[in-house]
Amino acid sequence: MKVSILGATGQNGSSIVDGLLASSETKFDLTALVRPSSLEKSNVTDLQKRGVNIVSFNLGDPEAEVAAQLKGTDVLIVCCLVDELALANAAKKAGVKRYIPCFYATVMPRGVQTLRDNKELVLDHIQRLHLPYTIIDVGWWYQISLPRLPSGRLDRNLFLYSTAIGGNGDVPSARTDARDVGVYVARIIADPRTLNQKVLAYTDLRTQHELYNTVEKLSGEKLERKYRTAGEIDDGIAKTKDSNMMDYYQYTYQKSYDIMGENTPEYARYLGYLVGKDLYPDMEGISFEDFFQETLETGLKPMYEEHADMLRKFSSFVFKGAAATE
Amino acid sequence: MKVSILGATGQNGSSIVDGLLASSETKFDLTALVRPSSLEKSNVTDLQKRGVNIVSFNLGDPEAEVAAQLKGTDVLIVCCLVDELALANAAKKAGVKRYIPCFYATVMPRGVQTLRDNKELVLDHIQRLHLPYTIIDVGWWYQISLPRLPSGRLDRNLFLYSTAIGGNGDVPSARTDARDVGVYVARIIADPRTLNQKVLAYTDLRTQHELYNTVEKLSGEKLERKYRTAGEIDDGIAKTKDSNMMDYYQYTYQKSYDIMGENTPEYARYLGYLVGKDLYPDMEGISFEDFFQETLETGLKPMYEEHADMLRKFSSFVFKGAAATE
Repeated sequence: MKVSILGATGQNGSSIVDGLLASSETKFDLTALVRPSSLEKSNVTDLQKRGVNIVSFNLGDPEAEVAAQLKGTDVLIVCCLVDELALANAAKKAGVKRYIPCFYATVMPRGVQTLRDNKELVLDHIQRLHLPYTIIDVGWWYQISLPRLPSGRLDRNLFLYSTAIGGNGDVPSARTDARDVGVYVARIIADPRTLNQKVLAYTDLRTQHELYNTVEKLSGEKLERKYRTAGEIDDGIAKTKDSNMMDYYQYTYQKSYDIMGENTPEYARYLGYLVGKDLYPDMEGISFEDFFQETLETGLKPMYEEHADMLRKFSSFVFKGAAATE
Repeated sequence: MKVSILGATGQNGSSIVDGLLASSETKFDLTALVRPSSLEKSNVTDLQKRGVNIVSFNLGDPEAEVAAQLKGTDVLIVCCLVDELALANAAKKAGVKRYIPCFYATVMPRGVQTLRDNKELVLDHIQRLHLPYTIIDVGWWYQISLPRLPSGRLDRNLFLYSTAIGGNGDVPSARTDARDVGVYVARIIADPRTLNQKVLAYTDLRTQHELYNTVEKLSGEKLERKYRTAGEIDDGIAKTKDSNMMDYYQYTYQKSYDIMGENTPEYARYLGYLVGKDLYPDMEGISFEDFFQETLETGLKPMYEEHADMLRKFSSFVFKGAAATE
């Protein structure tokens, strides 16, 4: 199965490359589509050493040329910010058999968050093209679900984190280890049942209180539990909507998952999603307990390294402690 | 099963009332929600004589009062133009178990037609409310699919009609006798499989050429086949978009069904619809042949009687022949 990927070196992209290369069920012939200016970057040459084909790709080229480059692609995976309308046009022209637009987040209806709504506009365009597709959402990453430990021992590389529990803390939410995204993607893109469907693939479903309880139990530290009411979240959304997109996204995500309870298999099914656990009952992702135990022992893997400094400057959801800049 | 309906005396509404009253599978306790100003109209009092409960209903009342009126409703069916956002809010508050927004048309993606997009905005709102729902589309009515017969014997009551075949005439499209809409609705709203789903319930799937051939064969008349190219349809859309909504709707419908081939079970499944023929293989609607034979014998049932004179004035898809005003 010939798979091409845009954004192979990003947070989701690298997980997907790992997942596809490790797949034993399906053999993937994997190509990373890379901007000409990035061809010599070390993370790109590293991919090549691991057996990924590297192709210079410029979405600004004439559509016919872009389509010619995509010819023969079975699955085209997008996991970076690009003009997906232009890309989908070329993919349709090239006869791509399945297009995976950049979703990979929590389940949410339309009209809650502009970031999500823009993804839906891409889906609308795909559907106007009659282009075969699969939507993949994975819930919220473990790696950005943790509260800060009072001891500060997670501060190094703590990035997006749980600054406050939304609502009463008793609403379940779906979470996944970022490293498992690719494992799920490998299974989903080879599955005929998921063609032209939305899929929520997640590992863990628990409330904020349950998550805090687990963190307390495994760390042996007592956490301070701060709460953010539905009203405070709505105020946060109103205040940041036109001024601070990063905080606006976080408030809207939190409204959806902590207040509305939308990041659940139940609500996903209501929206017409298939659910990974129903499709693949044999699959077990990394448990939250194992992830957190490992994190305590070896530290938290850095997230969004490239943008971290920039984001630390203005987002209230990004950890800014002294240790973080070590 | 307690069913309430808004728009019970309209084109779809009366079919739905007929279908629900005739249902032998499920016994429906049917209530027509009627504007205070319409309570004394003869088509409303006729409903009452047939066993339909009549309730005075004003969507402009405070939400709590509207919700109180909807309390105990299992299924709320909308088949008229009302503020569905306000209605859905009240339905959610009242605990309505299934809300049927006003769709009842052809299958189409977003971004093709404002009329359809507005329906999708209602769906978005429903989904933000987490309100249980079912979308029901029925394709295009037989009653407005006919070309004019050269003899003029159908002109009486010919209304919206096939003025020209879009594209090459070889694209299949789903159609249904308007009288069967209610028969399908009765089955769908009592079916747990259709909860929170879109359903395309249609009877006949054939191309424009096949439809014209059938009309020629049964009528014994030779039809002139006029064609409208994709480009002409696009021009028509551009020209009417801001000036003549009725023609804009017709051009966009035709683009979707005759050019894009979207009004088919195949494309419906692609969009995530369930298909009536899959769900109810035992159900046979009125065949196009039977409908047309009957029409030749007894004449065409008038459509949109209330608005016909107004629409005849400015829509190019509405039959304007002298006989029509007889």
